[in-house]
Amino acid sequence: MTSGRLEAFSDGVLAIIITVMVLGLAVPKGSSWTDLVQTSGLGLLTYLLSFVYVGIYWSNHHHLFQLRPAVDGVVLWANLHLLLWLSLYPFTTAWLTETDVAEVPTIVYGLNLLGAAIAYTILQRTIARGPDRDRVREAFGRDVKGIASLVLYLAGIGLVFVAPWLGLIPFVAVAVIWLVPDRRVERYLRAHAAVGSPDDEEGPTP
Amino acid sequence: MTSGRLEAFSDGVLAIIITVMVLGLAVPKGSSWTDLVQTSGLGLLTYLLSFVYVGIYWSNHHHLFQLRPAVDGVVLWANLHLLLWLSLYPFTTAWLTETDVAEVPTIVYGLNLLGAAIAYTILQRTIARGPDRDRVREAFGRDVKGIASLVLYLAGIGLVFVAPWLGLIPFVAVAVIWLVPDRRVERYLRAHAAVGSPDDEEGPTP
Amino acid sequence: MTSGRLEAFSDGVLAIIITVMVLGLAVPKGSSWTDLVQTSGLGLLTYLLSFVYVGIYWSNHHHLFQLRPAVDGVVLWANLHLLLWLSLYPFTTAWLTETDVAEVPTIVYGLNLLGAAIAYTILQRTIARGPDRDRVREAFGRDVKGIASLVLYLAGIGLVFVAPWLGLIPFVAVAVIWLVPDRRVERYLRAHAAVGSPDDEEGPTP
Amino acid sequence: MTSGRLEAFSDGVLAIIITVMVLGLAVPKGSSWTDLVQTSGLGLLTYLLSFVYVGIYWSNHHHLFQLRPAVDGVVLWANLHLLLWLSLYPFTTAWLTETDVAEVPTIVYGLNLLGAAIAYTILQRTIARGPDRDRVREAFGRDVKGIASLVLYLAGIGLVFVAPWLGLIPFVAVAVIWLVPDRRVERYLRAHAAVGSPDDEEGPTP
Repeated sequence: MTSGRLEAFSDGVLAIIITVMVLGLAVPKGSSWTDLVQTSGLGLLTYLLSFVYVGIYWSNHHHLFQLRPAVDGVVLWANLHLLLWLSLYPFTTAWLTETDVAEVPTIVYGLNLLGAAIAYTILQRTIARGPDRDRVREAFGRDVKGIASLVLYLAGIGLVFVAPWLGLIPFVAVAVIWLVPDRRVERYLRAHAAVGSPDDEEGPTP
Repeated sequence: MTSGRLEAFSDGVLAIIITVMVLGLAVPKGSSWTDLVQTSGLGLLTYLLSFVYVGIYWSNHHHLFQLRPAVDGVVLWANLHLLLWLSLYPFTTAWLTETDVAEVPTIVYGLNLLGAAIAYTILQRTIARGPDRDRVREAFGRDVKGIASLVLYLAGIGLVFVAPWLGLIPFVAVAVIWLVPDRRVERYLRAHAAVGSPDDEEGPTP
Repeated sequence: MTSGRLEAFSDGVLAIIITVMVLGLAVPKGSSWTDLVQTSGLGLLTYLLSFVYVGIYWSNHHHLFQLRPAVDGVVLWANLHLLLWLSLYPFTTAWLTETDVAEVPTIVYGLNLLGAAIAYTILQRTIARGPDRDRVREAFGRDVKGIASLVLYLAGIGLVFVAPWLGLIPFVAVAVIWLVPDRRVERYLRAHAAVGSPDDEEGPTP
Repeated sequence: MTSGRLEAFSDGVLAIIITVMVLGLAVPKGSSWTDLVQTSGLGLLTYLLSFVYVGIYWSNHHHLFQLRPAVDGVVLWANLHLLLWLSLYPFTTAWLTETDVAEVPTIVYGLNLLGAAIAYTILQRTIARGPDRDRVREAFGRDVKGIASLVLYLAGIGLVFVAPWLGLIPFVAVAVIWLVPDRRVERYLRAHAAVGSPDDEEGPTP
């Protein structure tokens, strides 16, 4: 079973999540700059943050499946589990925004980010458990970024108890860390291009 | 006619259904844990149930079309018939949630689940009617799970008359039964891999 | 330029239109059968009608591009023109429903259906104008169904002036005519399968 | 790394943006032609304008990736940056409409159009920076249309200070300029078809 349809379905869900969040942006009643900033300013910032997060997951998902792992029922559900957490972003982002970054909504937003990160780790390990074990492990190495993210999410949730706004700083930091593109898979594929057949380099036909 | 576009379209519709249900989740007005549980607690649970259901249909649909059936006009409409029932999930889920699992909305939710299950059975039989008759029948065998689901849906609808919450138990049970991945198609494809050409094993290019 | 991406994009737009219409369905405030029928009964019927229409366009679009026409800028825009009309269905369907099938909204709904039908005819002719001229013309023949639809739409719009409900009858009739699958393309492809290369039969890789 | 999944994801996002804008159209309360014009007239016009804009970006994006550029992490993010600007169209279009083309919302709409145009230029240059440098540059030449658009956007934003409605004229003009299909890529691909392998002509398998 190839990963083509799993990727197409995930692309669809991620594309919708990223776009649907805009529907949550309140359109200002008035028509001045002040109205825009007051009604939608915070919403645009949290939208930007969640957009970047979904973009990061899409980009990493894309890289992960470039390794063309074998796909069985367990991988399908590990992937759906990730999509479940990501699909809650519009909800937790809207609550964060509408309460002006209050304490509990910021914790819930952090837990949502943490849940998605854990689900992604599970997906990666589920794939690394199969016949592609060595390729995936070699490509991802010690996964420093992944572990740093989990630590930062927990730090952010902890900082909320000092002041909710402080908690957002580690969340933004995680986004910045990942915005630097992850070249591990690209490097791995390039390194093995000489040995493999030309077909192998092309990655999954989407 | 190959099944590629039918799968792409179905992936799109299922991806939207699964994501759009989140838009139905009411965002709490307050910012405490109590507000979250009272406003969105039930909604998150019914969202989870419907998410799992859509995930199951996507996963089974994926497996069914791995057999690469011939696609004609009748299969197209059997598939659209299934999508019609699934597209009503956000509506029936929202009604179930907003009425706090009242009697009639629970029956309607159960009828919606039942309708989708019957539509899926029709789709499977429509495919088994064509040139792929033997392959589909051999792959699916006696379809114990499918029959058990229909019985459980009817049991759930019956239990609603005792107490609406009771009716949800068989609905959850069906989801749990199907969450265990259906390995029949995988087993069938593996068993026939040695005989078929390598191309045949790859499943539909999505 | 192949038609693959045009089809993928159209699939996406049609999948969203078909699903987004459900968001327009008002969820009943009460929890009885009467509430369901009064709040959502008409909405479910008009949803069904528009769902079938979008399904028909998707199915015909699918068949049309099975002929693998050459795609240039003019075809791209003829296709976007069709999608524009179809994207208005959720809007005109909602107005028709919320005004309980009043005169003007029924006319507007009919004009929307008519506009989409004309746009589809233009798309078909735009394709038939290119190098695939003979294949498309031979496959579609005299297009009796297409002409009958245009006549029925005009009849429906005319009947609205007698009574709005009467106007819906020809609109439903068009849907029924098209629900009978259009076997012309399938027949054409089968007839030419023996002569063409095996590749030609496969239709567009989606 | 091929561009297939990047295209599929972009298709998904653009398909949703184009369709979701319809959800922003207010359905008239009354059922007369006057109600339609007063409630939805302006909304239908701005919807049409934004639909054409998204269509233009989809069409140009399609052409750009017909050149089958190499895709790395930087191209992924240049593409996501473009999608971010385009995803704001439903928001800025709704504000423009609901304030009846007031001054600030028209400027914001113009800035949104300008931001998307700059993001597209960055994407094009990011691609032209890689191994496909010469092919992309040769195909796009001096990009007169691209520069004219930027000038017209700035002119539109300036004209808003005279009268908001005036500012819309250059925005419409840009749409008209681009509606004339961009034949540069088609011409380039045709010119090089004779030299390249047959595979090269087919464009990206979507």
